Amino acid sequence: MTLPFDNRPFDIDTYALCRRTVRQYSSKEIPDELLDRLIEEASHAPTTGNMQLYSVIVTRDAEGKKTLAPLHFNQPQVESCSAVLTFCVDINRFVRWCEVNDAKPGFDNLQALLYGILDTALFAQQFNTLAEAHGLGCCYLGTTTFTAPEIAKALNLPPRVIPLSTITVGYPEGEPQLSDRLPLDAIRHRGSYRQYSDADIKRIYAEKEALEESARFIKENAKQTLAQVYADVRYPKEMNETYSASLAKFLKDFLTTPDNAEE
Amino acid sequence: MTLPFDNRPFDIDTYALCRRTVRQYSSKEIPDELLDRLIEEASHAPTTGNMQLYSVIVTRDAEGKKTLAPLHFNQPQVESCSAVLTFCVDINRFVRWCEVNDAKPGFDNLQALLYGILDTALFAQQFNTLAEAHGLGCCYLGTTTFTAPEIAKALNLPPRVIPLSTITVGYPEGEPQLSDRLPLDAIRHRGSYRQYSDADIKRIYAEKEALEESARFIKENAKQTLAQVYADVRYPKEMNETYSASLAKFLKDFLTTPDNAEE
Repeated sequence: MTLPFDNRPFDIDTYALCRRTVRQYSSKEIPDELLDRLIEEASHAPTTGNMQLYSVIVTRDAEGKKTLAPLHFNQPQVESCSAVLTFCVDINRFVRWCEVNDAKPGFDNLQALLYGILDTALFAQQFNTLAEAHGLGCCYLGTTTFTAPEIAKALNLPPRVIPLSTITVGYPEGEPQLSDRLPLDAIRHRGSYRQYSDADIKRIYAEKEALEESARFIKENAKQTLAQVYADVRYPKEMNETYSASLAKFLKDFLTTPDNAEE
Repeated sequence: MTLPFDNRPFDIDTYALCRRTVRQYSSKEIPDELLDRLIEEASHAPTTGNMQLYSVIVTRDAEGKKTLAPLHFNQPQVESCSAVLTFCVDINRFVRWCEVNDAKPGFDNLQALLYGILDTALFAQQFNTLAEAHGLGCCYLGTTTFTAPEIAKALNLPPRVIPLSTITVGYPEGEPQLSDRLPLDAIRHRGSYRQYSDADIKRIYAEKEALEESARFIKENAKQTLAQVYADVRYPKEMNETYSASLAKFLKDFLTTPDNAEE
């Protein structure tokens, strides 16, 4: 199958099935006008009560990317891409709007944080789809929530603005492999949730486990099963817990800063 | 501007700008095959480490919709749509996979919850885009996190499966209004975040505040400003806090249930 950007006239079903993460970019720069247009179009994604509780910080200069790179564990795409987009939950703008308009916001709580997280994720994903449909290549960086406090400092984020996800974007170089997905009946439940039996689990993960790259991961990491690679090496408990503690502290500041606090 | 489903051949930029939430549906049912195909295509959305930490529960029968309706505050689209899709963070399947494969997952923490929230939101939004591109109408229900514990019970969700968002979907009836969005420079920051001055806030919210429907909201609710309608009536502090408390308790059970606990 070809990459969606070789798929003209554009067909959205082919795109959806053929899309893939792009981590290697050519040196060609995305025009600012195109990037702005994609961000503007993405802002028409659904949003809670039309509040748009997000902001995106666009980093294009080499120095800015160099500052962000270590905060994303020096993944090379941060410096090699054309633009780094840091998608942030933004409750600050809403609170400022209230302040200017004699309104008393009540957004220093978990539900408001979730309105913002959903708004931000939907906006980011709409950008991702639009950029890919235009032949650009994108890569989400999951490191964003690991180093959220440091990213907030680097990007001069005020209180109530929280880095949630990052996308690197550029013109693709090469053609990355399609990645596998679980079969439909692994993720879709009819009427109510049915718990997975051992046999179900073996069946729905069989194709993934049979991949050549899975065998390579297991061998390289001296493990017995692919699940062990995930649980012990890729997303180990200690790593998850360390970054959970720092993020919890950062979010707690959000949840306990009254909306009318002086900054 | 016409709705995107009148926009053939499909153009993604026109779609992005013209898309809108659809709350009224015709009685025509979506074929199961189409719904399955859209869910499968959506599962190719980006996902953390290719873990797909989500499930979607599809409710199509009248009885199932009737059970869900009050959990969404009886919004009429729950019963009038062709299908209700409840998008859930699903750590359970991953943990079951680990159990079957002699692996010890460390996913009973905040970062894992966020992997799941992002995976689920991206998957839901990809479904939303694909469905809309096929001429279907969608509506996100923000009530999902308000009543997450009750929805979990209604859909028979096991521990580690958390309702995050719901989409009602069907063939549209009528043509809903386009909704406004803030100007690009309200949401896009270059290089680093710039705090909004009072003048900035007045400028970027001016168009929204000048809308006829804003004047109507203010009048109907006997308020002075649109921000007051949002802060006092639509998303009041008391409501946010009440539902934050119940959700926090529900999530705390997730965060404090060790992955190897007996169920």
